[in-house]
Order: sequence, then structure tokens, then C-alpha cells
Amino acid sequence: MSLYLDNAATSYPKPDAVYDAVNHALREIGVGPGRGVHRRGMAATRLVFEAREAVAALFGIADSSRVVFTHSATEALNLALFGLLLPGDHVVTTTMEHNSLVRPLHLLQARGVEVTWVEADRRGSVTPAQIAAALRPETKLVALSHCSNVTGSVQPIGEIGRATRSAGAHFLVDAAQSAGMMPIDAPALGIDLLAAPGHKGLLGPQGTGILYVAEGVELAPLMVGGTGGFSAGPEQPDAMPERLESGTLDTPGIAGLKAGVEFIRDVGIDVVAAKEQRLIASIVEGLAAMAGVTCHGPVPGEPRGGVASFTVAGMDSQEIGFRLDREYDISVRVGLHCAPDAHRTIGTFPGGTVRVSPGYFTSDRDVEEFLAALGEIVGRKQP
Amino acid sequence: MSLYLDNAATSYPKPDAVYDAVNHALREIGVGPGRGVHRRGMAATRLVFEAREAVAALFGIADSSRVVFTHSATEALNLALFGLLLPGDHVVTTTMEHNSLVRPLHLLQARGVEVTWVEADRRGSVTPAQIAAALRPETKLVALSHCSNVTGSVQPIGEIGRATRSAGAHFLVDAAQSAGMMPIDAPALGIDLLAAPGHKGLLGPQGTGILYVAEGVELAPLMVGGTGGFSAGPEQPDAMPERLESGTLDTPGIAGLKAGVEFIRDVGIDVVAAKEQRLIASIVEGLAAMAGVTCHGPVPGEPRGGVASFTVAGMDSQEIGFRLDREYDISVRVGLHCAPDAHRTIGTFPGGTVRVSPGYFTSDRDVEEFLAALGEIVGRKQP
Repeated sequence: MSLYLDNAATSYPKPDAVYDAVNHALREIGVGPGRGVHRRGMAATRLVFEAREAVAALFGIADSSRVVFTHSATEALNLALFGLLLPGDHVVTTTMEHNSLVRPLHLLQARGVEVTWVEADRRGSVTPAQIAAALRPETKLVALSHCSNVTGSVQPIGEIGRATRSAGAHFLVDAAQSAGMMPIDAPALGIDLLAAPGHKGLLGPQGTGILYVAEGVELAPLMVGGTGGFSAGPEQPDAMPERLESGTLDTPGIAGLKAGVEFIRDVGIDVVAAKEQRLIASIVEGLAAMAGVTCHGPVPGEPRGGVASFTVAGMDSQEIGFRLDREYDISVRVGLHCAPDAHRTIGTFPGGTVRVSPGYFTSDRDVEEFLAALGEIVGRKQP
Repeated sequence: MSLYLDNAATSYPKPDAVYDAVNHALREIGVGPGRGVHRRGMAATRLVFEAREAVAALFGIADSSRVVFTHSATEALNLALFGLLLPGDHVVTTTMEHNSLVRPLHLLQARGVEVTWVEADRRGSVTPAQIAAALRPETKLVALSHCSNVTGSVQPIGEIGRATRSAGAHFLVDAAQSAGMMPIDAPALGIDLLAAPGHKGLLGPQGTGILYVAEGVELAPLMVGGTGGFSAGPEQPDAMPERLESGTLDTPGIAGLKAGVEFIRDVGIDVVAAKEQRLIASIVEGLAAMAGVTCHGPVPGEPRGGVASFTVAGMDSQEIGFRLDREYDISVRVGLHCAPDAHRTIGTFPGGTVRVSPGYFTSDRDVEEFLAALGEIVGRKQP
């Protein structure tokens, strides 16, 4: 029986309602929103509006026109960073970030944006005081991930948001590992820009993502083009969300994302979060009890998202992943997880780690099965 | 019975195999390519590779790593234009372009790129001589649509490609209304950059698109981030297609696109093209026979894609579209079709036109039904 523990890459399975919503949008609606006066176009327009409202409601956003549909968190982060930052601006970030934040910032550095990389501790955390100390008068943005995709470390974004706001800077949160898995009230947390994939905790299909842009934050579009309405002029319209959404929207993907978000709201984000916490705590506890296994990241009692990364003394992470797959049909992820800086920070570069990430549909029995399999592999390492 | 004649916006219906492929990728594969050593990840990697090969084969492209998956033709065009053009470069285009080309070029003009807008004739066509006359030593790019989404005019891209190549410039073709509907051998036509949506003639789902980048053409990425492989450094890798594809790919969408392209290859692109030609010729003929109706674009005998645009003397286009929908359940598109310059060129700005665009699944009987409905509306216009 196949066991999937790589939900930090993409959640699987999705709720049945997600598959059904994609299928319905493909087969029955068929078209995109805002591209025709006919009733199919109207149905698509309504569906996309309702999806925007559902996403807005999940994150405490009052005006859903500030929710932009992207095709990934990567696109959302690129849009936020390239849309906001100009040469001379200063950005504060951390050494725990994913390449989707690191690589745009690296490119922007080459164009004259100054970046301060706040060093996280060996467990992957930064403190609000560290962030506050890095703020300067010319700081335009504080940008960091809510939860590390390597260690599961959860940054104190409420306090960091307050410090950022006091300094007059904008606050960008990469919620790739927290959206749909932890309660996030974006305005209450002082978040100006919230980037999230649609296909991880939000349980939507791949090819979806969102960027929330708080009122008063003006972004230059990453791409421009057809917007359905406002067609007459050669300039991108100012109206949101059209300003930041060009081309035919992915209506089936957005339909699936809507179903995923509605599933979370029906179950309750607190219930989802509690389940994730219980599962990851069992995994961390099981790893800690295994001789020769080091579980990286937060220690028990410290906040942790649904991710655990470990290494085994004397064993290659690649080999562990390979054997979990070949011998037990258990899917985990090994390597650098597109976040080499995070591995440098916690001391696991360049070998990387084995990463385990349960999801809402993972059971306690699945966790036991994984721990038993790993125990066998580790126990047999020197035959 | 609902009749959909807006295939120039998005094709509908798709072949059943497309719906099934999306569903299979969502339910059975579940994950993205290149993000894990486990067998699910391998299955996704194989699927995406096969999709790339299928697209490459359709367009005569030898090396499928030069086919980049985007989420729309809009993204493909933005990637090509912003990735290639620098201040001081000169671009030649036409007055028949869609906002997905016009708006990026307009932005680039503001940044110091010079653009020559070659004026098409009232039927929407430019000549190779006009393009050749606009070429200059500093011309970096000739960029135009193969087939107009307003008039269906088909530009002589073979001759234009030769003139462009002789001048040492690159050639970008927007194949939004031709890919999957007309044979296109990109290398033979001298095309350096071919942008196409996945969800129109290629019969894939919305949220898909492609950009072919000929060997020797180097583009700066529109966005950067996680690439699965090549993870260790802060710079985007040079290897194609990873250089231009960041973040989790839309595996279900790409699975659907693969199925759409395979459907076209199974039927035969010549067969698809012949059917489209027959249908559009019937529509144009029927429109021409209707008193008070003006069909814009090419005259019979001139090349035309699967699009016909018309106006009715004394009647508003919006009203015609509305009545076709309300009274006959026929979906067409009215207005400016995100291409205001094309309407200025053919003399239908700002009122726009009614656009009719059949697809592979449109029947001769559908065309008759549409013409009969329109005949009734036009006949009743002054009761």
C-alpha cells in the first residue's frame, strides 16, 4: 500500500470535491471568466469570484479584489518582489528561505537592491529582535517564510509584523508551508503581501497560487496583456485584480482551489492544524527515539509546522529515500528541498536531509508504518 | 441545445481524453515532476517529458528541452519580450496585435525600446515587403501574430521569417489562433520564438501555454525560484527548460495539454485544418449573403484562420451577442477581443464586432443553426 509523506511538496490526495470541481469546470463550464457575455462566461466569472471570496475569508481579508490568482507561490513571490523593489531599496530576510525567495532577491541585489540576510539559529529560527535590529530607515520590505520547508521552524510573524509596521516597511510572508495548515489572519498579523501555493495546504491542484496585496501597496505587474475588461488602452488597467492578472485564467485550477479552501473551512482550520500538529509530533518523537537518527529543527515544545527533516549517522539521505520508496513504497523527499541556505544554516549542506511531511489525510497508522520502515532501514545499515 | 462558437477564446469541448488525462494526473499521479526520488515523482517527470516531446513534434522542433511550459500565451509572450529586449533595441510589429503583445511592447517602449507598428490594410494583413521596409540594422525582433483573433487574417510568416533572418533579427510568432489549427514547422518557417496557449487550438486545459525558444536565443527569465534540480546556488540555472520554468509545474494541466496535442496528431493537423477551413468558409459565405451584415477581414480566396468578425448596420454588437445567448443559447464573443488596435485598423473601434469561431467539434449543422439564428435576429431588427 502506497504511503505518501511529501505533502510539503504538494498535498496528496486532495479531497474528492477538488477533483470533482476541476472536472466540472473542464466539462461543464469550459470557458474562462470575463471573456464573453454568454452564460458560460458568466458561470466562470461567478466561480472565480466565489473562489476569490473563499480565499479572502480564510485569511481574514475584507476586500477579495486584493487576492490575485497566480500559478504558484513562486510566481506570487516574484510578483511581490519585482513589483515592489527598486534600486536603493533595502530588504530584510533570513537565511532559512526557499529559492523562490532567495533567487529573486539575489537577482534584485545585482540590480542595486540591498538585502540583509538575518542568520537563523541552528534550529532554523529568527527572533523579532534580530529582525528589528536589521531594520533601517530605507528598509522597504521584510520578507520571510512563515514556516521553513526544511525544518518546519515557525517564525514569530505577529511580532515581526509589528516591528516591521513600526519601521514603516512592508511585510511579505511566504506561507508556502502554513497556508491552509495554520490560522493566518493577514491584516491582524500586519501582513501586506501574503504569497501561497494553491496546491499544498490549501488542497487545490498544481498550477494554482495566490498573492494577497494589502490596500495601499502598489505593485508593478510581472506581466501585462489581455484583461478581458478595460481592453481599449495599451496600458495595463489600474483596477484590481485585473492589474496583476493578465491572460486567460486557469478556471479549472481555480475551481479546484475553491473546493480545497472550502474543505478546510468546513473542517475548520483549527481542526486541520491540530491534526497536523499531532502527526508531526508523533513523527518527531519517533525519530528522536531512534538510535543514530538526528531530527533537525525545533525541539519539542517549540512551534513547528508539518515538516520534519532528519539525517542518519553513516547513511546517505538519498539512499534512505530510495529504500523507503523501493522497499516500502513510502514517498518522502531527500536533498536540499530548493533551500540550500536553510541547510547551510542548520549544518546539513551539501548532503541535505530526508524530509517527512504528513497531510490532512495521513493517519496515525501511516506514521507508525513509516517509523517502522525507517527503523528497519536504520537497524540494517551495518549488516 | 447549447452551441459554443467562441473557440478563439478557449476551445470547448475538449476531447474526452483531455478531461481523463487531467483527472488521472490529479487522482493517480498527484505530484509534480523532479521534486522527489519516489516513483510518483518519476511518473510525473516522465509525463511532463512526454508532453514536451509531443509539443516539440507538432511544431517540428528537434530538441524538446527548448519547449518551455508557461500558463498562457500571455506569459509566453511576456517571457519572450521582457527576456530578450533591452533599451536601444528595435522591434517591428503590426497594428493587428492582441494586448498580450501590445501591452508588453508599450511598457518596453517606455523603457527605451523602439517599436515600429506596421499598419495592416483594412482586411487586417501586412505584406512581407512592409515588414522588410521597417527592418533596421538595430532591429532585434520582428513580433507578430500568425492569425488575427479579430479578423482571422493570416500573415505570410514564411516570407516574413526569411526577411527577418536575412536582417539578422529574431522572429517571434504569436500562434494563439493558429497553433493546433494550422501546420507550423517552426524551424522551417524561421521562427525563433513561438508562443501559444495550450487551451485553444491545442485542446488542452486553461492554465497552460508554451514558448519555443530556438537554440542560440537566450532569454532572461521572467521569474526565478525553485527548479527541483540545480538547487544549490542562488542563481537560476542555465540549463533548459529549468532556466525558464520555476516553481511547481502544473502537472494535471500539462497532462491535459499532452492529450490535446496527441489528439491533434492522431487526427492529423491537415485534417483538423481542413475542417476548420470548411466551417469558417461556410460562416463567411452565410454572413456575406445576409443583408446589412458586414464580414470583416480577408475576402474569400485570401487565407483566413478559424475566426470571423462581423457587424450589422444599425445594430449594436453587444445586443447581437446578448440575443444569440438569451434567445438561442449560442455563445459568441462581442467587443474588442483584447485587440483594440486591430479594430482601429479595420475601422470597427470602439464599437467592436461580433466574433464567431468554430472548433474541431463544431458541425456543419451548428453553422446552419447559427446562421439561421442570426438571420432571425437581423431580420427582426426593425419590427
